[in-house]
Amino acid sequence: MAVSLHHLALLLFICTCIGLISGTKYTPDWASLDSRPLPPWYDEAKIGIFIHWGVFSVPSYMNEWFWYDWKTFKNPSVINFMKQNYPPDFTYADFGPKFTAEFYNPDQWADIFSASGAKYIVLVTKHHEGFTNWPSKYSWNWNAMDVGPKKDLVGELATAVRKKPGLHFGIYHSLFEFYHPLYLNDKANGYRTQDFVKSKTMPELYELVNNYKPEVIWSDGDWEAPDTYWNSTEFIAWLYNESPVKDTVLVNDRWGSNTRCAHGGFWNCHDKFNPGVLQKHKWENAMTIDKGSWGYRRTSQLNSYLTMEEVVKTIASTVSCGGNLLINIGPTHDGRVIPIFEERLRQMGQWLGVNGEAIYSSKPWTHQNDTITPNVWYTSKKTVNGTAVYAIVLNWPKNNELILGAPVGTSGTVVNLVGYADKLSWTPGNPSGITIQIPPIPFNKMPCEWGWVFKFSNLQF
Amino acid sequence: MAVSLHHLALLLFICTCIGLISGTKYTPDWASLDSRPLPPWYDEAKIGIFIHWGVFSVPSYMNEWFWYDWKTFKNPSVINFMKQNYPPDFTYADFGPKFTAEFYNPDQWADIFSASGAKYIVLVTKHHEGFTNWPSKYSWNWNAMDVGPKKDLVGELATAVRKKPGLHFGIYHSLFEFYHPLYLNDKANGYRTQDFVKSKTMPELYELVNNYKPEVIWSDGDWEAPDTYWNSTEFIAWLYNESPVKDTVLVNDRWGSNTRCAHGGFWNCHDKFNPGVLQKHKWENAMTIDKGSWGYRRTSQLNSYLTMEEVVKTIASTVSCGGNLLINIGPTHDGRVIPIFEERLRQMGQWLGVNGEAIYSSKPWTHQNDTITPNVWYTSKKTVNGTAVYAIVLNWPKNNELILGAPVGTSGTVVNLVGYADKLSWTPGNPSGITIQIPPIPFNKMPCEWGWVFKFSNLQF
Amino acid sequence: MAVSLHHLALLLFICTCIGLISGTKYTPDWASLDSRPLPPWYDEAKIGIFIHWGVFSVPSYMNEWFWYDWKTFKNPSVINFMKQNYPPDFTYADFGPKFTAEFYNPDQWADIFSASGAKYIVLVTKHHEGFTNWPSKYSWNWNAMDVGPKKDLVGELATAVRKKPGLHFGIYHSLFEFYHPLYLNDKANGYRTQDFVKSKTMPELYELVNNYKPEVIWSDGDWEAPDTYWNSTEFIAWLYNESPVKDTVLVNDRWGSNTRCAHGGFWNCHDKFNPGVLQKHKWENAMTIDKGSWGYRRTSQLNSYLTMEEVVKTIASTVSCGGNLLINIGPTHDGRVIPIFEERLRQMGQWLGVNGEAIYSSKPWTHQNDTITPNVWYTSKKTVNGTAVYAIVLNWPKNNELILGAPVGTSGTVVNLVGYADKLSWTPGNPSGITIQIPPIPFNKMPCEWGWVFKFSNLQF
Amino acid sequence: MAVSLHHLALLLFICTCIGLISGTKYTPDWASLDSRPLPPWYDEAKIGIFIHWGVFSVPSYMNEWFWYDWKTFKNPSVINFMKQNYPPDFTYADFGPKFTAEFYNPDQWADIFSASGAKYIVLVTKHHEGFTNWPSKYSWNWNAMDVGPKKDLVGELATAVRKKPGLHFGIYHSLFEFYHPLYLNDKANGYRTQDFVKSKTMPELYELVNNYKPEVIWSDGDWEAPDTYWNSTEFIAWLYNESPVKDTVLVNDRWGSNTRCAHGGFWNCHDKFNPGVLQKHKWENAMTIDKGSWGYRRTSQLNSYLTMEEVVKTIASTVSCGGNLLINIGPTHDGRVIPIFEERLRQMGQWLGVNGEAIYSSKPWTHQNDTITPNVWYTSKKTVNGTAVYAIVLNWPKNNELILGAPVGTSGTVVNLVGYADKLSWTPGNPSGITIQIPPIPFNKMPCEWGWVFKFSNLQF
Repeated sequence: MAVSLHHLALLLFICTCIGLISGTKYTPDWASLDSRPLPPWYDEAKIGIFIHWGVFSVPSYMNEWFWYDWKTFKNPSVINFMKQNYPPDFTYADFGPKFTAEFYNPDQWADIFSASGAKYIVLVTKHHEGFTNWPSKYSWNWNAMDVGPKKDLVGELATAVRKKPGLHFGIYHSLFEFYHPLYLNDKANGYRTQDFVKSKTMPELYELVNNYKPEVIWSDGDWEAPDTYWNSTEFIAWLYNESPVKDTVLVNDRWGSNTRCAHGGFWNCHDKFNPGVLQKHKWENAMTIDKGSWGYRRTSQLNSYLTMEEVVKTIASTVSCGGNLLINIGPTHDGRVIPIFEERLRQMGQWLGVNGEAIYSSKPWTHQNDTITPNVWYTSKKTVNGTAVYAIVLNWPKNNELILGAPVGTSGTVVNLVGYADKLSWTPGNPSGITIQIPPIPFNKMPCEWGWVFKFSNLQF
Repeated sequence: MAVSLHHLALLLFICTCIGLISGTKYTPDWASLDSRPLPPWYDEAKIGIFIHWGVFSVPSYMNEWFWYDWKTFKNPSVINFMKQNYPPDFTYADFGPKFTAEFYNPDQWADIFSASGAKYIVLVTKHHEGFTNWPSKYSWNWNAMDVGPKKDLVGELATAVRKKPGLHFGIYHSLFEFYHPLYLNDKANGYRTQDFVKSKTMPELYELVNNYKPEVIWSDGDWEAPDTYWNSTEFIAWLYNESPVKDTVLVNDRWGSNTRCAHGGFWNCHDKFNPGVLQKHKWENAMTIDKGSWGYRRTSQLNSYLTMEEVVKTIASTVSCGGNLLINIGPTHDGRVIPIFEERLRQMGQWLGVNGEAIYSSKPWTHQNDTITPNVWYTSKKTVNGTAVYAIVLNWPKNNELILGAPVGTSGTVVNLVGYADKLSWTPGNPSGITIQIPPIPFNKMPCEWGWVFKFSNLQF
Repeated sequence: MAVSLHHLALLLFICTCIGLISGTKYTPDWASLDSRPLPPWYDEAKIGIFIHWGVFSVPSYMNEWFWYDWKTFKNPSVINFMKQNYPPDFTYADFGPKFTAEFYNPDQWADIFSASGAKYIVLVTKHHEGFTNWPSKYSWNWNAMDVGPKKDLVGELATAVRKKPGLHFGIYHSLFEFYHPLYLNDKANGYRTQDFVKSKTMPELYELVNNYKPEVIWSDGDWEAPDTYWNSTEFIAWLYNESPVKDTVLVNDRWGSNTRCAHGGFWNCHDKFNPGVLQKHKWENAMTIDKGSWGYRRTSQLNSYLTMEEVVKTIASTVSCGGNLLINIGPTHDGRVIPIFEERLRQMGQWLGVNGEAIYSSKPWTHQNDTITPNVWYTSKKTVNGTAVYAIVLNWPKNNELILGAPVGTSGTVVNLVGYADKLSWTPGNPSGITIQIPPIPFNKMPCEWGWVFKFSNLQF
Repeated sequence: MAVSLHHLALLLFICTCIGLISGTKYTPDWASLDSRPLPPWYDEAKIGIFIHWGVFSVPSYMNEWFWYDWKTFKNPSVINFMKQNYPPDFTYADFGPKFTAEFYNPDQWADIFSASGAKYIVLVTKHHEGFTNWPSKYSWNWNAMDVGPKKDLVGELATAVRKKPGLHFGIYHSLFEFYHPLYLNDKANGYRTQDFVKSKTMPELYELVNNYKPEVIWSDGDWEAPDTYWNSTEFIAWLYNESPVKDTVLVNDRWGSNTRCAHGGFWNCHDKFNPGVLQKHKWENAMTIDKGSWGYRRTSQLNSYLTMEEVVKTIASTVSCGGNLLINIGPTHDGRVIPIFEERLRQMGQWLGVNGEAIYSSKPWTHQNDTITPNVWYTSKKTVNGTAVYAIVLNWPKNNELILGAPVGTSGTVVNLVGYADKLSWTPGNPSGITIQIPPIPFNKMPCEWGWVFKFSNLQF
């Protein structure tokens, strides 16, 4: 029994009509979806905070892949940790009730985030373990309201974050789950069935968007199957056309084994992606303060945490090349942001409080690094008087003399140290560039302790 | 766009073909399904054991509706129990990991069941709490393999029971779940959506049948919605036509708010259904040794448990009226059948060991009760020599004289006390019936302690 | 520097004076202590209930020596049990908080004890594990008020038991503790130091007597060291001379490696001591309904529990030989007497309700067993009309004819079946004794189901 | 009966003889004990680390007085914390098993302590809660081997600390315990009985010294009773005369309600004692990095922790006035020193690495503060060339000009900034003192970030 051509044509006509009535602009294919301009708030924001929190925060050992390390990789350290501390038949699900979050204070978190200078938040709502940090209808008895916290962790943070002017709320969501039986079944079927997608992961995403109206959808866990398995383009088309956040939302590029660094909104490409050269497409450097883990690790000693020198270097190199920085912390199972994370975030806020004009709403300059002095990164910004250029200098110049090769002065060129009152004197470099004599600044007059920003007005272009 | 009539006809034709090829005999409607004869093993078996086991066995307080008592009925006793013994935010899901089953020994259980004289087992595989006692793909992290026992409770019992000759394995399954969010959603939608049925409860039933091949499907939790919501007839048609147990399986009558005492296989009608009069349709009396609960209750004292006098009375009254008896026990959270249950079951086995000929494969007689002496129940059985009639006498006759109104003697009538060697002498009653003079039987020659069976051969019919 | 003789004399004089003033009658030596007559209530009581309850009731595995089985005997079954169910560094002390006793209802217990026909209770207040079931000042954080139950288990039961007319309250106390470091230290010192005795075990005993006024002190755990290490005679002298229970209290014989079956009040000699022949000194048969354990064992199946035939046989054989019976139950960690124990105790009460006149306040007769028929035990009792003799017949006589060799009839001899209205006819035996023809008693007129008592008045002496 | 005088004399003679034979130098009275010179290592060490660890680290809420706050002060915050997170009958003892210490790595701790520049460690071995962090024979089942860690926390740290050259090991021990029943009993008796002292607290102290050979005994919990109740002088006499650490050990001044700031070794006087003026007797400033608690508090945010500016200020003000600094951290229940503590300790080590010559083995100078510029503290040290004087300048001098009133220059006076290569030029102050012109030091040449030390040689004395 064949469907005749005129029937098909009719069908297409009907679909189109429905689309127009409901305001459809984008069709569920990458060509259309990729054509959507990115809402501008995101590029202006530059700095976001990533929050990895889940049942993995209970063992808080190894990292957020604890379950997989234990059961699939059979990592001896994890196996031994379990053997030493738990009865033999303890399962990962048994960690659920221990995710207590009794000290969870989302307003306190939001205070820290706000003080950090970040402009958006991306909260893990479900990691590969499948536990939903919100009371999902599609994850009964494996979510934060039924088990453990007995709270809507996502909703409470969304509310707290939105009380802070200038902070945007976003969510991380893993498409796949390590051990969901329906996923494993679909996988065993070569992804020709979609039971998992239809009954679990996609209903969750719609639920998240409708309930919490996030402005970033940071997808993950996509890599084992193509976008066609995940129904990604259908979801994104709905998101762009009909969702309550259709005008301001962004997505990343993790929507299938074939989409990374190729489709979506901003591109993450891979974890800790920091190419060091200018990129053609808007990208984001997702990285973490605890160098060895995204989730909280109890065993991390001080040397696991990035120093402020490293944080400032990462901000500079990322923003100079057109990226956003998504800097990650891992709260504890009982709901706290530990003091070392708070310290780093507040120190970042101090730095941005002085030097933010070189970061927020900035654009890459013609150069990203200096041509002579290493560890100098540039940004720029249009002003009413032309373009300001910022050199972020990570190492204090030897003998107070800063030699730069990239900027070329004009008679109108003015040089400032951001956060320091007086103009600096400069001389043309030889054969080109600019050399700055930094005056003796008493210790208590230094604008900051790490990463100094020199601002140039009226450079030659 | 209309579907033409000849298209519809074609469709029906195709469906019919598929049906014939796959061996379809029954169509998914009650008229067809009810026309199937009951597999005869069930009526012959007469005695089954019901096992209520689940997460409710952890609090083992009040009864197996603990969750509902707590959260919906707000039973003060349950609320107080929780308050006294658990932290304030403890949820029902938190009981899951405490369902430890460390002493679960299915072979030991099967020994007891076998010794009890029962011929089939009906194990609760999922009660209204939604926890599956087998590792269901459709109940991730809320099943006995992921949480608590870390075992396939259903599979292990099926295997153990099948090692015992003559024991059939069956399962109880609740269609609805108190608090499944998809069920509650369907309910809020007036049962016009079937998300719960399609992603949870029906896939489970198919999984159970395919994995464990039960010969009884004891459905429950049906009463809030009609059979059309549950897709009951589709399931039963598949069960009768195609399932691996299609030839021997029976179902009960709980498949929708409109089916009880009306459709299905044997009828349970309501809990502890024991009408006391002959029924036209095969039925089953599901009742429980702990009079106040189906699940294990820690607070039950001795007077909560049926005495053997009560058990024998229930067997007699049920079988006489054409019913089967499904007698329930509640194992503990750690996997044990407590001694008082074991004692009752083994005592039942002793009684049936002597008196089983009046029970197994018996048929109701023309009378169910005696017309003169109360607490006398009749059964009958075709033999090579005609029909034997059994009077189950629950109270020992006063002065050793048993006066019966229902049986009418003939010259060939022989009367025996089952389990006692000598024939008994009798005289015709006045105006009718039979009077038996029981000889002085020394205490140590008594066939049993409760419920004596008098057998009549060659009565007048 | 020598103490002169007259100083010594003065000292003795002073001591004696103190003694007389405070009512001293007994000196702290066995010759004196053993000379005290036993308070008569105890011999009249005949039946007591022993209660083994403690932290061992938490694992409720193997028996109340669980800790020792695990750590010293290294019993593979216990080691495996721990390995399977607990983390590797779990200690016995970690069981403490799990001894919850949330269902402990001492009035309910007292009801059962009262219904059982027992006349005294002996509660374990501290077993070899050292955990005190009362809030002892000498066992801080290892007692039932600080850890686990958060209740004074001893005090609450004492109060409940005393509400029941005729029930006496007694206590079990272990002198030694498996692993108390001060005990182990004294032991390593060859018992030449007494740090443990002076700071722990003896202060506890005084505290127990002063607080709870028990009428039985059932000492145990004495066997590794002599009475001189334990300071036993000092304690007993105080108990007999000055304590609040000095007139009614009894002790047993476990007060040092040299005292069993030799000194003290009544003698236990060894566990389950049941010699089968008349003893010269008042003794007690301490035995347990669960044949394999004194403490509650979760793994005990029905065949571990004594049948009522066995219970009645033990009562008969014990009392006939001059003993008391102390019949043991093991409550659960959550404070319950499980139904099988309740059933046995209530059945014992039914039996004693009919046959108690042969037990309570009885005396051994000239014969303990019958000379012809096995399993017949005799007791006797002075009455206003002479002496009644009771034959407790454990097996129902073959063909209703009871042939006894020990009693010799006279013309005035009357024979009754206790609990049955009519006198029985008897004939002299050949060559001697008495033969009784038991009439045909309808089943419902039988006085009891196990152990029938035949009473003889006016036998020949 | 009187003891004659010549008997008493004889007794004294015997005691004296015993004393001489065993090497007695000090008698158990303060006059004698206070006459002992302090072992010199302590004054030279200057910086110690205090470690508050115990069962209070489990709730890690409020502070180490949690139990008292809860039960005696009835602090609403603590009461609410318990209500929200634990069952109603949860006791403090129930926290014991949760003190897990699974990540306790004493070598890692010792690395941090060594890097901090501290020269001695004072570990809490038993706080007022009575839980002993070592396996004490006198605290059975309420010590770290039987309950919780299952480790000898004290012994393991002693071993690790002693592997680090220059680190001394000391212990904190609380004489009283909040709720020990024997203590409460002694207290109720007006301290006329000493059951607690004799069976618990003093045996523990002897055990600690004999087992772990600590060089500091930091006593506490003394204030409710006089030294005569505690038997303090007997203990200290033994410690000074006979103990394995008699030559090097020091004690503090907390040995009875009458001893603080009056007797003992060094004086703590009160917590956070920092008088700001020179003291006549060697003293110690015990203070804590988390300003609100000695034990770990999970709720402490960043602003609870001392900044490095505050730490350096405390070092300067303490050492200048003749004190030692005992700076406290609180490890977690699972055995970790959290990164913020590690960071502060390592930063202190960096500072001392540069500036230690002004601290270690220094002596107070004639001035403690400067007379003109606030926040300048002085120390001094004898050298081969006379006396060096150190001015610790906490605020960077305005316009790089440091004006000091206390030091008076001579023609030979040399001024250095410790950690900076070049000599500094100076001019006499007006009317007196010294004014220093600090040269423009490039940021990367600064010796440290907080607290700069100016060293003076050949000042006028």
